[in-house]
Amino acid sequence: MTYPGGDYDIIVIGAGHAGSEAALASARIGFKTLLLTINLDSVAMMPCNPSIGGTGKGHLVREIDALGGEMGKNIDATMIQCKMLNTAKGPAVHSLRAQADKKAYQFRMKEVIENQENLLLKQQEATEIIVEDGKITGVMVNTGAVYSCKAAIICSGTYLKGRIIIGDVQYDGGPNGLFPAMYLSESLIKNGIELQRFKTGTPARVDAKTLDYSKMIIQEGDDQIVPFSFETDSIKIDQVPCYLTYTNPQTHQIINANIERSPLYTGEVVGIGPRYCPSIETKVMRFHDKERHQIFMEPEGLNTNEIYVQGMSSCLPEDVQIALYRTVPGMEKVEFMRSAYAIEYDCIHPTRLKPSLESKAVAGLFFAGQINGTSGYEEAGAQGLIAGINASLYLRGEQPVIIDRSEGYIGVLIDDIITKGIDEPYRMMTSRAEYRLLLRQDNADLRLTEIGHRVGLIGESRYQKFLEKKEQIKQEISRLNQVIVKPNQENNAVLRSLGSSEILHGLSIGELIRRPEVKYQQTAVFDPERPVLHWSVVEQVEVQIKYEGYIKKQLQQVEQFKKLEHKLIPTDLDYPQIGGLRIEAAEKLQEIKPLSIGQASRISGVSPADISVLLIALEQRRRSGDQKGTDNE
Amino acid sequence: MTYPGGDYDIIVIGAGHAGSEAALASARIGFKTLLLTINLDSVAMMPCNPSIGGTGKGHLVREIDALGGEMGKNIDATMIQCKMLNTAKGPAVHSLRAQADKKAYQFRMKEVIENQENLLLKQQEATEIIVEDGKITGVMVNTGAVYSCKAAIICSGTYLKGRIIIGDVQYDGGPNGLFPAMYLSESLIKNGIELQRFKTGTPARVDAKTLDYSKMIIQEGDDQIVPFSFETDSIKIDQVPCYLTYTNPQTHQIINANIERSPLYTGEVVGIGPRYCPSIETKVMRFHDKERHQIFMEPEGLNTNEIYVQGMSSCLPEDVQIALYRTVPGMEKVEFMRSAYAIEYDCIHPTRLKPSLESKAVAGLFFAGQINGTSGYEEAGAQGLIAGINASLYLRGEQPVIIDRSEGYIGVLIDDIITKGIDEPYRMMTSRAEYRLLLRQDNADLRLTEIGHRVGLIGESRYQKFLEKKEQIKQEISRLNQVIVKPNQENNAVLRSLGSSEILHGLSIGELIRRPEVKYQQTAVFDPERPVLHWSVVEQVEVQIKYEGYIKKQLQQVEQFKKLEHKLIPTDLDYPQIGGLRIEAAEKLQEIKPLSIGQASRISGVSPADISVLLIALEQRRRSGDQKGTDNE
Ligand SMILES: Cc1cc2nc3c(=O)[nH]c(=O)nc-3n(C[C@H](O)[C@H](O)[C@H](O)COP(=O)(O)OP(=O)(O)OC[C@H]3O[C@@H](n4cnc5c(N)ncnc54)[C@H](O)[C@@H]3O)c2cc1C
Ligand SMILES: Cc1cc2nc3c(=O)[nH]c(=O)nc-3n(C[C@H](O)[C@H](O)[C@H](O)COP(=O)(O)OP(=O)(O)OC[C@H]3O[C@@H](n4cnc5c(N)ncnc54)[C@H](O)[C@@H]3O)c2cc1C
Repeated sequence: MTYPGGDYDIIVIGAGHAGSEAALASARIGFKTLLLTINLDSVAMMPCNPSIGGTGKGHLVREIDALGGEMGKNIDATMIQCKMLNTAKGPAVHSLRAQADKKAYQFRMKEVIENQENLLLKQQEATEIIVEDGKITGVMVNTGAVYSCKAAIICSGTYLKGRIIIGDVQYDGGPNGLFPAMYLSESLIKNGIELQRFKTGTPARVDAKTLDYSKMIIQEGDDQIVPFSFETDSIKIDQVPCYLTYTNPQTHQIINANIERSPLYTGEVVGIGPRYCPSIETKVMRFHDKERHQIFMEPEGLNTNEIYVQGMSSCLPEDVQIALYRTVPGMEKVEFMRSAYAIEYDCIHPTRLKPSLESKAVAGLFFAGQINGTSGYEEAGAQGLIAGINASLYLRGEQPVIIDRSEGYIGVLIDDIITKGIDEPYRMMTSRAEYRLLLRQDNADLRLTEIGHRVGLIGESRYQKFLEKKEQIKQEISRLNQVIVKPNQENNAVLRSLGSSEILHGLSIGELIRRPEVKYQQTAVFDPERPVLHWSVVEQVEVQIKYEGYIKKQLQQVEQFKKLEHKLIPTDLDYPQIGGLRIEAAEKLQEIKPLSIGQASRISGVSPADISVLLIALEQRRRSGDQKGTDNE
Repeated sequence: MTYPGGDYDIIVIGAGHAGSEAALASARIGFKTLLLTINLDSVAMMPCNPSIGGTGKGHLVREIDALGGEMGKNIDATMIQCKMLNTAKGPAVHSLRAQADKKAYQFRMKEVIENQENLLLKQQEATEIIVEDGKITGVMVNTGAVYSCKAAIICSGTYLKGRIIIGDVQYDGGPNGLFPAMYLSESLIKNGIELQRFKTGTPARVDAKTLDYSKMIIQEGDDQIVPFSFETDSIKIDQVPCYLTYTNPQTHQIINANIERSPLYTGEVVGIGPRYCPSIETKVMRFHDKERHQIFMEPEGLNTNEIYVQGMSSCLPEDVQIALYRTVPGMEKVEFMRSAYAIEYDCIHPTRLKPSLESKAVAGLFFAGQINGTSGYEEAGAQGLIAGINASLYLRGEQPVIIDRSEGYIGVLIDDIITKGIDEPYRMMTSRAEYRLLLRQDNADLRLTEIGHRVGLIGESRYQKFLEKKEQIKQEISRLNQVIVKPNQENNAVLRSLGSSEILHGLSIGELIRRPEVKYQQTAVFDPERPVLHWSVVEQVEVQIKYEGYIKKQLQQVEQFKKLEHKLIPTDLDYPQIGGLRIEAAEKLQEIKPLSIGQASRISGVSPADISVLLIALEQRRRSGDQKGTDNE
């Protein structure tokens, strides 16, 4: 029996990393929101590594924060160790990564959600979406309640028809010993949303008392923690260490000897796994000349002995898992608390989404997170936030927020999956971004706060502070370019001590900072009038001055890029009708329905020649009086 | 495929309240112990009320603590409100009850378990017990591992073939959205352990932001918290309040109107539910002249909005649940976060257990907790502790610890279930104890610390402190009986001010304290040499003096009782062979195999006449030279 459960503006299915951001965003923007989860005790749960951030991913968290999302604040409040990665390299690839107290992370997020106005969190399994006239109008749950809604966001992660695999032991299940969602898939298919089968895996959680850390290399956090959120002033915690150890030929030999027992090799597993987070058996098989692989021991929290064994994901049978773990130095006597496993799940083809993350098949139905074929908490959070924003703008009848590839990693991520499609779980990497030097983690606020403010997620007081910061940066740069350092003995002695060459005529401090070996702080001696500035202002001033040349160059490239992005294509264009377009290209274009020539040119299978044909067709259309396809610059 | 998972002395299946105590006890006694749970995130989880203690149950917790168990310490560390109940009545029924931060309670217990030497905690589902020659030799789990053991303790709670019921919505599931255990039941049956089907229910968890507390009555904790554990010195916390409200005729009318939709009335549910914790629909149907029922709002923790609605357990369909909740003052706009549900599960017939909690069918296999047909965390913890102790003593080849009905509520509980059997979930109540005045919560340490010390769960330093306390009580009582108060004006003025009658000749302070209106503290003015004593010593001195007469009388009754308990019956006695015993009695006796005439006399269906026949048969057996059946006094 069904019954009417109540009316909502927006229903979010799934309270993982995507769903939490989506629901908070839509409720904060002001829409009455219902957030459904299979299990209330697993809100914002990390089924894999107990950490947030990392190369590329740290950028996403900062962008989420700049737009008014929660992830950055949540990890700031619950981290137990933090590191800025890649500091030996340029600022484009600096990335924050923090170990989280996993439970604390979950519970803080749940608390924030529970206390959010306009938002109701409920433990119920969504079993059907209700679609009328091509529009989403409601969601049904397992207890028979039918909720009406004007928009919905599906963030079901790895739960749809979830199947657990530990060697020959296989059963229906969600991650972390939780129930899977066995019904929603069918309802999606019925409504024209095709599904594919992906797979991901996780290592064992082991008992810290059975590890010998003295045989491993200690990994401490940074002395000075840089927070994820632009609103967190500072973080002062006693950090806990991680430990590094390595596999060895004996480990690899055990894998080789048992590889025929791996479901990956017996063909029992149909889901496609991520190339970038392979299982230990895949790493050993793929790189057989590699003598060792890194293994990190990461604590799951402050008050537990459970240790996450990063690098040792596996779906080999449990006895093989244990045997191979015990070959690793410091793990000779290791005991498992939870076994490693792989999980297979249903996800959609993200090319069936608009850049707003709305489904092309069902109006008002948005998708975010692992259901879109991505992998990772940060990727999920980023999509969730955008889906939450765009579902709200959809209800307001406004244009969606589409962040382009020159504005943020979020833009790169979404454009990649909806334009190029995916054939394995997609994860963020700095190499995917063309304009890396512009899309730094340190300037995410400068890039995106404006948008967050416009949609209503950045409040006035934060916005004012942001404008102030922007102004301070501008003024300080201009000031530094005017303060001239004289070429006297004293000043040259300072420069020599910094390992920098002497000056023969007056130079601005700006010019000096442009030298790679000179830091802003070190030029204080030349600068008696220097104002006291927040470290984050100083950071911008320094990066912007030092990399001015490169940044300018990239900005020029962006201009080129934007030209093509602004050559819009009407969405009602009928590609197969365009004479001269190759069939493959026409099919791809018809499927993706790119919004611009820029997007069209990134579709794999669409050649530059196809783009020329397309441009001509658009020009003809324009001339014949239809204005929709014109360049809007 | 199976594989050998390793060798353990004792395996405990289930890390609920019973299993946690069982595993800690056996590991602390020194046996290599493996503790299995279906879900590592639900160790010591409270699937129903977020509280420990209550009438009768508080006694159990103190007894667990006196024996060296963990429950008392755990609630002391994680309580958010505490009350001594029934203080208007005599000390026999005073009972502690505390609200817990549910998650904090779980995680502290998990941490204690994780850090316990000799103990390994693992997330795996036990699927089979392995029995050879009538003895337990191992346990198999879902991943194929087979662990060997010399004893095992099954503490599977409500998980065996767990089935969730919410009106017509019914599915296989454990409590709280967790997986059920679908395989172990069959293995038990195969090994001669019959199962029955019981049922229990829980109310909805509702969102605090949707409640109007101004329409309810606030319920604060005690000003001064008495800790549960005899080792906790004091507890200083900011307590959070609960709230009281009531059902009304409108609530009852909704139930009446929808009762045919209740699975209890449609006959779809076969499990037998507890008479003492009935669902709201059962209460309304059973007491139809009652105008209102109490409903308490109990917070599930400090950092969550989830509120447990005590008194509103239900398995009506969800729409009816919501409708009836909304009739209650202050709940007009309530929103559910988790629905109320009932759960059906397999449990054993506890009459098939020995008083040690060992199975009569399989040597070395013990059972504890809800699997034995009881209900409640404290009942489970108490049995778990005893099973853990007795499995250890079994391995040592020593006699089991059997607490008798005059020594503790634990004794009453175990004797009740193994002797009388159960036909509904059993819960502890003070009325079940014959010697209530002796079995006070305040003297649990005096009654049981000795046993805890003997088995190795009470360490030397705690034991020395205990002996000291005992000695101090003794000395202070004897001292008070010697200090004489003179019948002068001054002293009589004090007595008058206490509302007590004047004295005409010298009386000891002891005599004065025997007067109901005079408290120990108030006699300090007569007692210049009074030593400074811990409040718990003073408490004993006062109770023992005040109730001396009643206590003496109960001690005499206990002597009678003990005589019958010490008339042992050989376990190889063949009852059907005894001439003159009624068939029903012979069958019951043959099933239960009571250890003593005392136990035999408590079996329902065994009459005093049967006991006389039995006594004669035993005497004959004794005379014919078999010494086993003799009185061992
Ligand atoms: C075993 C495993 C290994 C992984 N390994 C990695 C890795 O190595 N690297 C990496 O980057 N990422 C990894 N991940 C992925 C990472 O966990 C996810 O990318 C991330 O959690 C996705 O977030 P999400 O919000 O999309 O989904 P999730 O965090 O999975 O959340 C999904 C939510 O949806 C709810 N839900 C689902 N269906 C329903 C329904 N029908 N009704 C109501 N609620 C529903 C669930 O209860 C849950 O709250 C792994 C995940 C798993 C499970
Ligand atoms: C819905 C509900 C309502 C209740 N209402 C009340 C009430 O009103 N009043 C009251 O006093 N009590 C109530 N209870 C009962 C109370 O929760 C239990 O009595 C208490 O938790 C029992 O403790 P336990 O240790 O026996 O079992 P549980 O606490 O249930 O723990 C069982 C443990 O066994 C594990 N397990 C089970 N099978 C396996 C297996 N095959 N392999 C490995 N691990 C396994 C589980 O993972 C879990 O850790 C209720 C329980 C439920 C579920």
